[in-house]
Amino acid sequence: MVVELVSVGTEILMGNIVNTNAAYLAEQCTALGLLCYYQTTVGDNEKRLLETVQTAMKRADLVILSGGLGPTKDDITKEVCAKACGRKLVMDGASRVAIEKYFEKMGKEPTENNWKQAQVPEKSIVLPNPNGTAPGLIIEDEATLILLPGPPNELIPMFQNSVLPYLQGKQEAVMISQTVKLVGVGESSVATAIDDLFDGQSNPTIATYAKTGEVHLRVTAKAEDEKKARKLLKPMVKELKERFNEHIYTTDNDVSLEQSLVELLVNNQLTVSTVESCTGGLLAGRLINVSGVSEVFKMGHITYSNKAKRKIIGVKRSTLEKYGAVSEQVARQMAKGCCMLAKSDVAVSVTGIAGPEGGTEQKPVGLVYIGCCIKGKTRTKKYQFTGNRRKIRESAVAAALVLMRECILEYIAEMAFGDKK
Amino acid sequence: MVVELVSVGTEILMGNIVNTNAAYLAEQCTALGLLCYYQTTVGDNEKRLLETVQTAMKRADLVILSGGLGPTKDDITKEVCAKACGRKLVMDGASRVAIEKYFEKMGKEPTENNWKQAQVPEKSIVLPNPNGTAPGLIIEDEATLILLPGPPNELIPMFQNSVLPYLQGKQEAVMISQTVKLVGVGESSVATAIDDLFDGQSNPTIATYAKTGEVHLRVTAKAEDEKKARKLLKPMVKELKERFNEHIYTTDNDVSLEQSLVELLVNNQLTVSTVESCTGGLLAGRLINVSGVSEVFKMGHITYSNKAKRKIIGVKRSTLEKYGAVSEQVARQMAKGCCMLAKSDVAVSVTGIAGPEGGTEQKPVGLVYIGCCIKGKTRTKKYQFTGNRRKIRESAVAAALVLMRECILEYIAEMAFGDKK
Repeated sequence: MVVELVSVGTEILMGNIVNTNAAYLAEQCTALGLLCYYQTTVGDNEKRLLETVQTAMKRADLVILSGGLGPTKDDITKEVCAKACGRKLVMDGASRVAIEKYFEKMGKEPTENNWKQAQVPEKSIVLPNPNGTAPGLIIEDEATLILLPGPPNELIPMFQNSVLPYLQGKQEAVMISQTVKLVGVGESSVATAIDDLFDGQSNPTIATYAKTGEVHLRVTAKAEDEKKARKLLKPMVKELKERFNEHIYTTDNDVSLEQSLVELLVNNQLTVSTVESCTGGLLAGRLINVSGVSEVFKMGHITYSNKAKRKIIGVKRSTLEKYGAVSEQVARQMAKGCCMLAKSDVAVSVTGIAGPEGGTEQKPVGLVYIGCCIKGKTRTKKYQFTGNRRKIRESAVAAALVLMRECILEYIAEMAFGDKK
Repeated sequence: MVVELVSVGTEILMGNIVNTNAAYLAEQCTALGLLCYYQTTVGDNEKRLLETVQTAMKRADLVILSGGLGPTKDDITKEVCAKACGRKLVMDGASRVAIEKYFEKMGKEPTENNWKQAQVPEKSIVLPNPNGTAPGLIIEDEATLILLPGPPNELIPMFQNSVLPYLQGKQEAVMISQTVKLVGVGESSVATAIDDLFDGQSNPTIATYAKTGEVHLRVTAKAEDEKKARKLLKPMVKELKERFNEHIYTTDNDVSLEQSLVELLVNNQLTVSTVESCTGGLLAGRLINVSGVSEVFKMGHITYSNKAKRKIIGVKRSTLEKYGAVSEQVARQMAKGCCMLAKSDVAVSVTGIAGPEGGTEQKPVGLVYIGCCIKGKTRTKKYQFTGNRRKIRESAVAAALVLMRECILEYIAEMAFGDKK
């Protein structure tokens, strides 16, 4: 079954917001084995939206639209889709009551434009929206149209609770992907190392994706059922495992680098703490996005100023004066000091120049030192990142996670070797 | 001039990555006064990509493509665009040398597939890529095609350094937007409060955008030059200022909430520190994304565990035992303790349950307490957020910034009042 995504909103066309809904819907559709050939974004303009919906209805079996269901006058998705299918709008009693209840719960009064949201095209399936006032809609016509609200915190639960069960009954083939996630190796080298695997590929297929500090290899197989698809995937994933070995941190689609790290810490009963300068909390923020991190995360510190580095973490004044805050020596003392303060097994430190100000010829913007102390042994590494402030900070966080992983694996290997002696 | 954006990549269609390039390019084009009616994403498939390029060339004067210029075999954007314009590919000497130099700088050897990247359509303008191996291209044909590499850290500098100067010479009209950014008021209420302004709108136009914890009102005017466009904007922005008053934190497109807060702190010579539990560094991370924050940011702490709350910040064991870590009382002690430890004028604390585990009937997932201590006076507030772990944490960070802003404005008002006495 072929699906097409249509995102509606002048705010996307004008670049005010990033279209995360399309990524979410695309991923969900892929997981369902649906084939997606086009994603289109179009504004809140009747003529162009109608044309887009009509084209999509010709090209695909299923068209998922997001956005333009809000209470304001420029929200016209529902009206245009009703027109594309030649249907009238009627008042939906249940939606009217749901809107009343929603406002009651929020302790607010509905405004006149909220009632527009209870109007639905005749003979459509109404999807409840517990997180907002715009109900979703399914219109079964030449192609099936699914209309979802734009805000992700309304769209995602509605997709999970209403659309997913609806679509699961309509599958023809199963398409399954497995992602082999690599660190410590570049995209070009990865591409060269698997070039021969591309030549014969048809099922499974393989694709490379560059992420900040990571390369992902996505292997996708298509078959009539999940079991057969998994059987097709297996030898290719095995081949990749042999080729990339220790660079692979997971072969699980849903496991992030920070998640694999937290698992590594939990499984080896190692606690961790962080001390950050230029990344200012983002490293801890990524680790703490892992549910269950509380078992191993002891504490984190953001020592942006030199004073905080001295006062909280115990970096020596003389070291700061002699080498500067962005130096191998300070990164080392930060990691060591953090281990001692937090009484953690592992501590990671980051100090660098995220810019745009603060760079010099000797220490340009993008220079970052990362330290990792594990059971008293400290390793540091120097990096030179490019991009704007945000990109440099993201790269530094990714690099810190990668260095931390290397140090932990090294430590585990040493311990295993020590036990054998 | 009408522009159309075409993003090329199966990884976008399959939802592996979020299309941030489209948002960036759309914003840049809008700023240039270009009109964008469609954004399309299509995979690395020759037939569909060719059709998409041909359709876009009919609908628009300018087509900007991103992605599919990489070294791997599935990268076909350049080849397809050459075909759409009926041009041959020829080896570009300068690009070949640039690729050699790039690899020399990286201390690596180019692989065979890198040379494919030095092939360009005849009579095209080659755009240098200092951050990667794929040069960009401008092909002037019935419509002008601009081909950019997919990685944002290559695309953005190339757009800034090569595409922007090229396009600036081609403008017909100037379109200028100004964004009035609000906090502490919901999207529906905002829509109702400006409903009358929508009716007559044509130039300037006005549009509302809901962000996490914020509502943005974008006013856009079109005129033959910048001065005339600004003159059209002015009365509408003034009207919005009168209607929303203290809810407005900025009317500057480029100023984020954290940036306006850092300015507020700097202008009032107030230093700040943070202590976070469930947000785990993200609040500090947002503040530290502001260049120049070092003037006011003293230190931050991530006290995820109860022990860290006691040991670092001095939350009382009895308070933790009596009320639990997620409570108004603990948020208060965290904010106060953080002020004392950091010797800062302001301290913000966050404690909550980000889930998916850890919720109870009395304290469900999404419950968050935020405290703000300013010169010894502490205010706390209770929130109930919805969504997944990430969304709850983002909402909590936004709410912490909003509460911090309210407390600082209140403090400033009190001081001004005190001075008058």
